[in-house]
Amino acid sequence: MRRATLAVMTIVVVLAAGVVMTSRAQSGDAPRYENGTDLRFPADYRTWTFLGAGLGMTYEGEGGAGNSQMFSNVFVNPSSHAHFMETGAWPDGTTFVLEFRQSDSDASINRAGRFQTELAIVEAEVKDSRFEDGWAFYQFGRAGNLRDVAAPMSGEPVQRCIQCHTDHTAVERTFVQFYPTLLEVAREKGTLKPGF
Amino acid sequence: MRRATLAVMTIVVVLAAGVVMTSRAQSGDAPRYENGTDLRFPADYRTWTFLGAGLGMTYEGEGGAGNSQMFSNVFVNPSSHAHFMETGAWPDGTTFVLEFRQSDSDASINRAGRFQTELAIVEAEVKDSRFEDGWAFYQFGRAGNLRDVAAPMSGEPVQRCIQCHTDHTAVERTFVQFYPTLLEVAREKGTLKPGF
Repeated sequence: MRRATLAVMTIVVVLAAGVVMTSRAQSGDAPRYENGTDLRFPADYRTWTFLGAGLGMTYEGEGGAGNSQMFSNVFVNPSSHAHFMETGAWPDGTTFVLEFRQSDSDASINRAGRFQTELAIVEAEVKDSRFEDGWAFYQFGRAGNLRDVAAPMSGEPVQRCIQCHTDHTAVERTFVQFYPTLLEVAREKGTLKPGF
Repeated sequence: MRRATLAVMTIVVVLAAGVVMTSRAQSGDAPRYENGTDLRFPADYRTWTFLGAGLGMTYEGEGGAGNSQMFSNVFVNPSSHAHFMETGAWPDGTTFVLEFRQSDSDASINRAGRFQTELAIVEAEVKDSRFEDGWAFYQFGRAGNLRDVAAPMSGEPVQRCIQCHTDHTAVERTFVQFYPTLLEVAREKGTLKPGF
């Protein structure tokens, strides 16, 4: 009987380890830093939750988007997305990735309009209470030469990011007005800023 | 000791159930049918893997896309995406969702270009060896009146789908030429059709 109990206990330990691994994977989309605040490139961001796309959007004061033929795709880490869908707010560790892609037209069966082609630029924004401002902005640079790790933006460029993401964003520091599925949730949860 | 064993056995059963639930969730993105071939609307498709977006794309012979100001977003179920990234091919049960959204411009900080707004139309394509052709096409209809369950398209409309998805697609019946992250994989794995 004692041997049976031990065998069962072993099974319990193995199964419990499996469960713990599962929970860890679920929170595996948290930002990974080096030297405290330098963000490792979230290489799997294309499997994160897609929030919206724009074509030719120009943000005054924001870097990299001044090409009228570029698509911008926005992704957020899935566990933060799930939290937002419940609450209308972003938890600590939320990471947005803004990806710019070139576009093309008149290829294959497409007769008009534009579709996405090669990667151009990747940027990120992270909510983390350890930052003085609560949010940090990162530039991973241009495709073909993307940084593995980026330091938080600083100085005048990031002041422009902060100003724009403070004055014009619908929820916290994020442009939820451009993410239609989130906009509905924020409206319902009452987390939109006045004026939206 | 017998009581302790029973308690441990109970824990084993609870943990095992947890593990089974986890495996089921991982394959939980398989198509769900009613009456054998009618597809239940995959309500969580917005958390699936995003493949690409277009603006104003017009596909000859494909329904619903004739509005030059509409965005088209394409999503695929995550487990099939993971399989494609390994092999360059689609497993049975692969489900594509094609979502059309209205667009807007000149709002908030956006000075040019267009961003996505409300949902317009949802369509799906499923690979399943039980279908005579190996693939089925579904129309879930217009936003505000989306079907919970759709029958596979039939007759002349689906013949146009099949024709176009046979003659012009880069990998199997899918327009991988418009999904840049997949196009690279298909090229590497050698699964592109001749001419791509």
